[in-house]
Amino acid sequence: MPPTGVAEKALRLTEMIRENLSKVDEGELDGLIRALLRTIGSGKIFVVGAGRSGLVGRAFAMRLMHVGFSVYVVGETVTPALKPGDVLIAISGSGETRYPITIAQEAKKIGALVVAVTSFPNSTLGSLADAVVTIGGRVVPRGQKDYEARQIMGIHEPLTPLGTLFELSAMVLLDAVIAEMVHLLGKSEEDLANRHATVE
Amino acid sequence: MPPTGVAEKALRLTEMIRENLSKVDEGELDGLIRALLRTIGSGKIFVVGAGRSGLVGRAFAMRLMHVGFSVYVVGETVTPALKPGDVLIAISGSGETRYPITIAQEAKKIGALVVAVTSFPNSTLGSLADAVVTIGGRVVPRGQKDYEARQIMGIHEPLTPLGTLFELSAMVLLDAVIAEMVHLLGKSEEDLANRHATVE
Amino acid sequence: MPPTGVAEKALRLTEMIRENLSKVDEGELDGLIRALLRTIGSGKIFVVGAGRSGLVGRAFAMRLMHVGFSVYVVGETVTPALKPGDVLIAISGSGETRYPITIAQEAKKIGALVVAVTSFPNSTLGSLADAVVTIGGRVVPRGQKDYEARQIMGIHEPLTPLGTLFELSAMVLLDAVIAEMVHLLGKSEEDLANRHATVE
Amino acid sequence: MPPTGVAEKALRLTEMIRENLSKVDEGELDGLIRALLRTIGSGKIFVVGAGRSGLVGRAFAMRLMHVGFSVYVVGETVTPALKPGDVLIAISGSGETRYPITIAQEAKKIGALVVAVTSFPNSTLGSLADAVVTIGGRVVPRGQKDYEARQIMGIHEPLTPLGTLFELSAMVLLDAVIAEMVHLLGKSEEDLANRHATVE
Repeated sequence: MPPTGVAEKALRLTEMIRENLSKVDEGELDGLIRALLRTIGSGKIFVVGAGRSGLVGRAFAMRLMHVGFSVYVVGETVTPALKPGDVLIAISGSGETRYPITIAQEAKKIGALVVAVTSFPNSTLGSLADAVVTIGGRVVPRGQKDYEARQIMGIHEPLTPLGTLFELSAMVLLDAVIAEMVHLLGKSEEDLANRHATVE
Repeated sequence: MPPTGVAEKALRLTEMIRENLSKVDEGELDGLIRALLRTIGSGKIFVVGAGRSGLVGRAFAMRLMHVGFSVYVVGETVTPALKPGDVLIAISGSGETRYPITIAQEAKKIGALVVAVTSFPNSTLGSLADAVVTIGGRVVPRGQKDYEARQIMGIHEPLTPLGTLFELSAMVLLDAVIAEMVHLLGKSEEDLANRHATVE
Repeated sequence: MPPTGVAEKALRLTEMIRENLSKVDEGELDGLIRALLRTIGSGKIFVVGAGRSGLVGRAFAMRLMHVGFSVYVVGETVTPALKPGDVLIAISGSGETRYPITIAQEAKKIGALVVAVTSFPNSTLGSLADAVVTIGGRVVPRGQKDYEARQIMGIHEPLTPLGTLFELSAMVLLDAVIAEMVHLLGKSEEDLANRHATVE
Repeated sequence: MPPTGVAEKALRLTEMIRENLSKVDEGELDGLIRALLRTIGSGKIFVVGAGRSGLVGRAFAMRLMHVGFSVYVVGETVTPALKPGDVLIAISGSGETRYPITIAQEAKKIGALVVAVTSFPNSTLGSLADAVVTIGGRVVPRGQKDYEARQIMGIHEPLTPLGTLFELSAMVLLDAVIAEMVHLLGKSEEDLANRHATVE
């Protein structure tokens, strides 16, 4: 059977993610990794995002827990007080999503270190963060609706509607961060499995 | 600046996803798409998964909602009764995760159509499902711990610990399913944006 | 066995709830009920709250779904766009919690009707709402920390720490609203059971 | 204004809770409190429940965190592996809800201590638990649908449909357990406020 619609679209998505991730800045990633490492033994990591960015953040948080970090998702039941010196990872493709911006503002006031993961380092979220990891995917300047920009650009069939390319790229990149952490901390897959939820 | 650790790892992950997705069966994907389409106007879609597979399922459910489907995540607050003729999408790399299996068994009893998304079509979950979408990633036979199998196979540094490769591949593939739905139903990006949460 | 610590405390809590609920204003409750009823057939209800107030909101939302309303929890996966004419129920004891305030402000801009459930009708949340249901429990004026106020008032052993009395009272009162809805709409317990989640 | 529908119903609900809680066994509550205390310094508490019982469990877990316990909700993002010696609190009015039963069975196999909070100590959940806290509210024997039993009993207007009375009573009783913990551990309201989420 010759490949038709969906499998082909999946390969095109993968190609788009690859091209998108080829532009990430290793220096920015170093900043994220150093922020995470400094919490060991003395601080906590908090993750926040709305919608699918929030789900990507949760997937990242779960693996950080498996690796051994003290990590929480903003808004979940057992999330304690964020304190000075803690680290907040705020994820928003546009950098203009109200919820992570509000949380990031409060975290800054408390004295936490804020790392933004966004397509726009000059967005509201990017501008208030202490460090930024820039991941492309949002093809529009902020303030402008995605579909309007795409229509102007002549992109008629949305293969990656809304934040899809940003979200997929962030999911892959943050799993590469996990792989780097596993390497840096000398963890084995068994170590991770040992912390993985046994009742779920 | 030459590429170092994380960016390089991200590109290797993307390559692994691409290779993994090159093996998916378009006929199986057709089965998933037909199952989803048959709910239009008369039924509901339910999504279930544990851990990161559950997060991938939620990301899929959110986009299905944007496209216009009546869709729910098992365990969330407003999820109503599943009825005969509804469709359950159950996601588990190993196909042996207790929670989605339990839900799938109950869904079968009620008379719903169950589609499993798994690396193992002959697993417990795959065997009880009406249709399966096979996505590689779990490199071990069921019943055997991942890390044991990897150690036997000489894989020492876990770039894709636990279910990572399955989860990333499923995330991309299910977004390709969304793109196909957008195409089949003639939706524009504006249609999706119009249903996207306005308060979050 | 004579009653000792916990059972006795539970009865004292119940007594505090009863006394607290004896002061609610039936007119305010009418406003809430009319707001909910006007969504039937044409609109959606959204519920928002942070922390334990958010959990009380979810318990209320679940029963509204059982009764037959189209209801969503802000921040959950399948929550669609809030539109003009929809109703937002925002729950906050102090009326100063940032998250429900932010959501309520956005809802107002969109043209939704906002009902605040709070101890302080003149709080930020209460002031911006179209209707308020006042439930006591927060014994302090806004801006002042609970425990400081309690120390001033000489309450040394916190039987109802933080928002406990407000949350318990709201949980009971909103279940009374459900009972009233069941009565007004002529629903039987079987109707509710018929919509209750069958897989969970 | 004379009291009409809702406020009156709320007072009747409070009266039903009070009567229901007057029957709880202090010895059973001692068992729960000892189970919780033994985790201090060496173990973790896990909480599980489906539907509104799950929300009551979360409200309890949040306060246990405020008091200083190491506590997790089964199914949330950062919930780690349950280990031998940990404690599982499983909440189900009927004691026959599949999800908490499944989790409790797995927890027993791992070697955790299971405490059931249920109306039926002889239910499946109650029978497999190491300790039970019995809270009335479910007026029917297990296996029988609530509304059938109520019709037989001539209860025509459901003031407390489905598990309402159990859930409300459990919410109040578990807050009395929190008050007892605050007393036993010599915590002040300030201690709790100090751990309460600062970004949410």
